[in-house]
Parts: sequence; structure tokens; C-alpha cells
Amino acid sequence: MSKYQHIKEEAYQANMQLPELNLVLFTFGNVSAVDRKEGVFAIKPSGVPYPELSPDAMVIVDFDGNTVEGSLRPSSDTKTHAVLYKNWEDIGGIVHTHSTHATAWAQAQCAVPIFGTTHADHLTVDIPCAPPMDDKMIKGNYEYETGFQIIDHFNSLKLSYKEVEMILVGNHAPFTWGKTAAKAVYNSAVLESVAEMALLTRQINPMTPRLKQALIQKHFERKHGPDSYYGQS
Amino acid sequence: MSKYQHIKEEAYQANMQLPELNLVLFTFGNVSAVDRKEGVFAIKPSGVPYPELSPDAMVIVDFDGNTVEGSLRPSSDTKTHAVLYKNWEDIGGIVHTHSTHATAWAQAQCAVPIFGTTHADHLTVDIPCAPPMDDKMIKGNYEYETGFQIIDHFNSLKLSYKEVEMILVGNHAPFTWGKTAAKAVYNSAVLESVAEMALLTRQINPMTPRLKQALIQKHFERKHGPDSYYGQS
Amino acid sequence: MSKYQHIKEEAYQANMQLPELNLVLFTFGNVSAVDRKEGVFAIKPSGVPYPELSPDAMVIVDFDGNTVEGSLRPSSDTKTHAVLYKNWEDIGGIVHTHSTHATAWAQAQCAVPIFGTTHADHLTVDIPCAPPMDDKMIKGNYEYETGFQIIDHFNSLKLSYKEVEMILVGNHAPFTWGKTAAKAVYNSAVLESVAEMALLTRQINPMTPRLKQALIQKHFERKHGPDSYYGQS
Amino acid sequence: MSKYQHIKEEAYQANMQLPELNLVLFTFGNVSAVDRKEGVFAIKPSGVPYPELSPDAMVIVDFDGNTVEGSLRPSSDTKTHAVLYKNWEDIGGIVHTHSTHATAWAQAQCAVPIFGTTHADHLTVDIPCAPPMDDKMIKGNYEYETGFQIIDHFNSLKLSYKEVEMILVGNHAPFTWGKTAAKAVYNSAVLESVAEMALLTRQINPMTPRLKQALIQKHFERKHGPDSYYGQS
Repeated sequence: MSKYQHIKEEAYQANMQLPELNLVLFTFGNVSAVDRKEGVFAIKPSGVPYPELSPDAMVIVDFDGNTVEGSLRPSSDTKTHAVLYKNWEDIGGIVHTHSTHATAWAQAQCAVPIFGTTHADHLTVDIPCAPPMDDKMIKGNYEYETGFQIIDHFNSLKLSYKEVEMILVGNHAPFTWGKTAAKAVYNSAVLESVAEMALLTRQINPMTPRLKQALIQKHFERKHGPDSYYGQS
Repeated sequence: MSKYQHIKEEAYQANMQLPELNLVLFTFGNVSAVDRKEGVFAIKPSGVPYPELSPDAMVIVDFDGNTVEGSLRPSSDTKTHAVLYKNWEDIGGIVHTHSTHATAWAQAQCAVPIFGTTHADHLTVDIPCAPPMDDKMIKGNYEYETGFQIIDHFNSLKLSYKEVEMILVGNHAPFTWGKTAAKAVYNSAVLESVAEMALLTRQINPMTPRLKQALIQKHFERKHGPDSYYGQS
Repeated sequence: MSKYQHIKEEAYQANMQLPELNLVLFTFGNVSAVDRKEGVFAIKPSGVPYPELSPDAMVIVDFDGNTVEGSLRPSSDTKTHAVLYKNWEDIGGIVHTHSTHATAWAQAQCAVPIFGTTHADHLTVDIPCAPPMDDKMIKGNYEYETGFQIIDHFNSLKLSYKEVEMILVGNHAPFTWGKTAAKAVYNSAVLESVAEMALLTRQINPMTPRLKQALIQKHFERKHGPDSYYGQS
Repeated sequence: MSKYQHIKEEAYQANMQLPELNLVLFTFGNVSAVDRKEGVFAIKPSGVPYPELSPDAMVIVDFDGNTVEGSLRPSSDTKTHAVLYKNWEDIGGIVHTHSTHATAWAQAQCAVPIFGTTHADHLTVDIPCAPPMDDKMIKGNYEYETGFQIIDHFNSLKLSYKEVEMILVGNHAPFTWGKTAAKAVYNSAVLESVAEMALLTRQINPMTPRLKQALIQKHFERKHGPDSYYGQS
């Protein structure tokens, strides 16, 4: 049995949640789970349909994107995962999908405005949208540069990846992450729902203002403050 | 066996209807059921996934929001439920969801206009939308104040909670109620459907007039009048 | 066994198709099936949830709306069905739903423009929308008058109920019919799909022209002409 | 056993994918699979509901549209399939649906603009929309002329059917194709998803620019270039 069995299992279970939550068509998505001690992560193989996946099909890759174990080619987005794991040390899992509404916002190259408490319960800023890369980055090591595009956009907005666990990549689609692969999947589903409601909100009232500061603060503290009282402790 | 077993069972069954009716993602919703004689209600515990719920997991809370029985923390919206039970004496059950279209109207801070008979079969005014609270209320006992925000808005519009069993809370999401927890869940599903159709109606014809008075009156009497003939008597 | 068992069975089977095809929420719809020789029809009882229906629960009603057999109250829309059966002699079944997109067009008080061949394969005019009734008709025998409102609108547009098997009732919702109850249900599903696509078509291109006459004529003949070649003969 | 059993089986399996992928209502779609050596293809019979299909129900037709084997009438779109097989020699399967969003774009007579990488992973131009035929073609051999309308539009845009495996027929609905019937079905599902996201993208930002050339090129090469690395090789 592989010494990476635990992350293969974690990545497999999390990948199987994507079709369950209606976040992927065919193979348009992937989840990875990291083992920080070993410095590797398990990721979905490229182009394999979800019903044919198994824990053993997961590919083990190091933080430079080299395959360490596994007979299949890893997801074509593997290098983006690798860059994020290498630079953001507290991430345990990463998800990439082309879920319908989140992808539409990414294609429109617009951040998702914070309009309500569903959004504020999870993050207290607009969901960021990284601009498309410049041509040199695209022509170079594309998926590798996608990772840096994400990190650079977070830095330019002074966001913490521990507070904001999701981003849209302009012209492309969303990435989410979290302490575990399961939490990253949860964030992908939240993002898709928040993105859909934000679009509908503006269709009802194109002048809808962003959530006011007192509500943003309240919802942030309700979950993250010293006296948090959301969920079971 | 708990002396509150009957409301635990009622609250459990009603909570399980929310995912069934596609009204919740993950744990974004809660239902409670009241025992008026005992002065308590049973409510969903906070943050527990629906598949893991059981009648015994329900938390028993009094009308001031104090836990009377149960080992889990009650829903973070518990104080809103408590205020409504305390002030509106004929309510038997309350539901809170973040259902997609109702929440979009709440985020847009717009009442849902009465456009047709589907709406008029259930209430004969626009579905009210309480404005966001002022900053002092938000910074204070937030969920407790949410209850008063709902009651104040009903009072300012001179609405009866017995005739209108639903409200949107601006920037937040809907609350519904009814004689039983099951009826409150029914109202949440009706609200979501009416909210979706109202948005589509305005997309087809932005100038759509509200339903004319004679039709409103007819549908009200068909259900509530002395000669009502809707449903089985 | 009832002498009306065959239409009870037909109406029951057709009613059960409505939730299957996502055309109803709760009990917001009804189907009837006629026996022309006996001059009666079987219709869904009012307010009974679909999972609790059975052929024996169907109510037998004559063309003046009087209950002939059955212990439950018939659907509140029964008199509309009765009027249509009495005046349109070749109808075998009638369906009423509040399906989402068809109802939105009815609420917007707009006929559904003929934009494509999906529409033209079933009818070659815009899907008509009867205007709301005048106040006197509403205050009178409402459901009875709804039937005449439908017939009057067909007459005013010189439409044949044999060629056009569906209508929207302004502010209310759709009615469809056909040679059998099953065909009427089929028409309800087609209407919902065509109504959704027409809304999306105008969102993509608000200036979309109606289908040109040569295509309308071709699709009409393909199905109804002397050399029809659509489906199995 | 028929000498065409392999394509009957292939066509049957592919047809059954259409309802599975929510691409058809009732019988509004059809798939065919070709046997190039025999110069025939297997296609769905006209008007037969999917649950009643079987491999043996498939009809064998030659490239002029004549039935070679089978007791049922072939799909009314058969001649369109025949023209495409005859003129485009590397096609192995063809699909026609009336899927909701692709059909809405066809009805609006608009090509689907390339807005993101989901689109670019499959084709690197706008999804073409053939204009409605002129009246003479419509009045003539309609389905036969539909095939030429598709080919003419590809020629006028200098597109290769090997690179672009999908088209919208104005006022009508989409056709897709591929090396196999299964690949053609896959393309129909991709088209429906890309069409939905493009509509939503423009609703979020009506000024959304088309994908920039460097990204288009990158995604094209990622899949088709000499160093392609997408999927398992």
C-alpha cells in the first residue's frame, strides 16, 4: 500500500463530491489534497471520467509539479495547484471547477460584489477576480503562471488566503482552497451559490448597494471573532 | 424519553423537507416547532449537516433564547425565532432559508410585487422586505434585533402575521411561518417559486402592472372567505 | 367498480406525470380526462398531494360542473374544465399548471412569440395570452368565466382549438388540452420549454424577429400536411 | 443478427445519453453513428420515446437518405445527417438536439462569442450560427437543404469541420458531430454549457470582450498542438 494512501483517499472522496454538488460537467474540474510532511499532494488524473475514478488513480505530485507516484498523467491544472501549495503554507486542499455562475463572472472579468449575509458568512470582501495574464505569461509556462497570477492578485488587494478562500481567474474559471480538500469543495459550492444570487440580485435591482460595513463586520465576527457562535465549537 | 419528543419529531421532519425541496445548500437553513403550553420550541442545532440530523439532535429553547434541553448549540438564528414566538402568539413553526430567488430579492432590498394568482392564492399584498437594521441594532444583539426588525416592519405596513406568513429581511434572506412547522416549510417553497416567477415576469415585461384589485379580492375570498372552496374542507 | 374507471385511471396517470415533468409545485396543477359518451370527466380532487393520489380519488363531474361520483371536492378549477369540454367537442383531456416560465409569460400578459422550429413543430402562431377578465366576470362565477375568457380569446383571434392546443390566461397561468389527457400533459411540457427558450432568446437578442412565414408553413405541413412525415404513422 | 449491429448498438447507446445529460425533452433529438465501409449510418427512429428505444429499433440509412434496414421511419432530420456524412468524410457520429440554451442562441440568430477557456478548450472561434435558409430552399427538400446550409456556412467562414464540431442553425437548433457518436454527444453537452455561460456572462457585463488571441492560441495548442498535454495520451 502506498505511503500516500491517506491523501489519495482524501482527494478521491473530495473529487467525487464535485459531480454530486453539480459543480462539474464531464471532467471539467479537479481536487487535490496535500501531505505537508511529505511535501506532496494527490490530484485527479487528467481527463478520466468521475465514475471511473478510484483512490489508486490519484497521482502524487511534488510542489514543483513533478509526478512522484502514479501511472496516469495528472490534471492539466497541476502546476497551478503546486504553486499555491508551495507559497501558501496553510492550505490543505485545492479545487478547480468550471461551475456555471462562477465561471460566468470570471468570463465577464468582474469580482462578485458582496450583496448579502450568505456571502458575508464566508468572506467579507468582494470575491476577487484576477485579470487575464499578459501575453508573455500565457505563452510561457501557462498553468504555472496561473498560480502566480492568483498570488499576485491577492497581494495587490492585500488579501489573506486564510480569510478569503476563493478567487476567479479572469477569462477562465474559479479556484478555491481550504484547510482540507473537503473544505475547499465546500467553498466551491458556496461560491457557485453566491455567484448565482449576485447575478439575480442585480437583475432585480441594478442599483443594489454593497452590504453595509456594520453588517459585514458583524458576520465576520460571528464566525471568526473571539466570541464566535456559528456552528458547533 | 423527553417530554418534548413531539416537537423534536415535528422539527426534525420539517427540517428534512428543506433539502428535499431544494431550499438549502449545506446547512443554510433551519426550522423550529413550538410547544405553546410548555413555552418552548425545538430547533435545528447549528452547523450540523442534514443527513446527520435526528429528532434527538434538536435543541429545546425557551422564548428568551435559553437552551432548556439538548447537548448541541442551537441554530445561530435561534433568537430571531424566540422573538417571533414570544410576540406572535398563533405561530406554530418558523423557517429560515437562503433559497436562491427569495434571497436575491432580499439582497436587492425589494418587496416581491404581486403579479399573479399563484401569489394571490397565498397572500394578497407584495411580499414585504424589511429594510436592513440600523448600525446600533446590528452591533447589539443582532439575531434578537432581527426578530424585532421583522415585527416592526409588519407593524409599519399594518400587516397581520396571520394573513401574511412570510417576509424578506433586507441584505439577508427570507423567514416564513405558519400554524405548524410543516406549513411554514410549505410557505418557504411557495415564496421561492413566487420570487422566481416575479423576476422572470419583469424580464419578459418590465412594465408589468401589479395584479388588479378584483382578482386579488377574489383569490383572497376563494381561500379565506366565508364561502371558501379551495382544498378539502 | 365504477363505470368511470377508465377515465379515472387515465386522469390519474396523467396527473402523476405533472410532478415527473417538473410542471407543478405541491398541488398547483390538475389534469382531467373525458368520457364523451357519458358526458362526464374525471378530475383531480382539490388540494390532495400527488403522492397520496389514486385512481379512486379522482372525482367524476358533468359538463355543468356538478359532481356525479366521488367523495372528495373536485379541483377548484373544475368549472373551467367543464366549460371547455362543453364547448370544444373534440377535446379528450385538459391540463392546468403554474409551470414557471409559462406562468411568467401569463403574469407579464404577453403572448409567446414564435421564434423557432421547436415552437413551429407544435403550433404555427404565437402562444395566445387571454387578457385578464373584467371585474364583473371576476366577481361572478370566476372559474366558469375563465373558460369563456379562453374561448372568447380564441374566437377573437380566429384560432382553432384543434390546431392550437394551449393558452395563457393573463395574470394567472397556462391551460393546455389535447385528444387525450396524456397529449394535454405533453403540450404542457412543450409550452414550458418553448416559453423558457423564448425568454432566453430575447435576452440574447432583444430584436429577434418572429420566424419567417416559409419556415412556419414548412413545419406546419411537416406535421399536419397531407404528406406529413414526422413521427411514426 | 444484422451486419449493422455494431452501429445500431453505438447509435442506441449514444441516443440514450441525451436524456441522461438533460439535452432533450421527449423525442426532440437524435443521434446517428456511421459505418464508412458499408456507406450507411444507424439513426434513431422518428417520434419513439427514449425509454422505448432498443438497438434493434435503430434504422439503417444510406448517404442519400434511403432506408436500407429497419421497420420504423427514421428521424425526420435524417437527410441532414446523410448530407453531412456524404460531404464530410471524417465524421463518425452526428447529434441534433433542441437543448435549451443552444437553441435560444440559434433562435436569436447569433453566434456564441468565445468568452473563456471552457469554450477555447473545445474550439477557438465563435460557435457559428448558419442563417435561416432562403424561401426556395425551405419549400424544397428542407432537411436535405439544411445539410447544405451547414456546409455552406462552414465554407463561407473558412472553418474546418475537424476543428469545429458544432453549429447552430438559425431559427432552429444545434447540430454537433465527432469521430464517434459518443464524441458528438459530448460536444452537444459542451455546447449547451458554453451557450449558457455565454448568456450569463453578457448579463453580468454586456461589454465583455472576446477572449484575447494569446489565450485562444494557448488553449488550442494545449489540446491539439504537437506538445498537447490535455487528457490521457
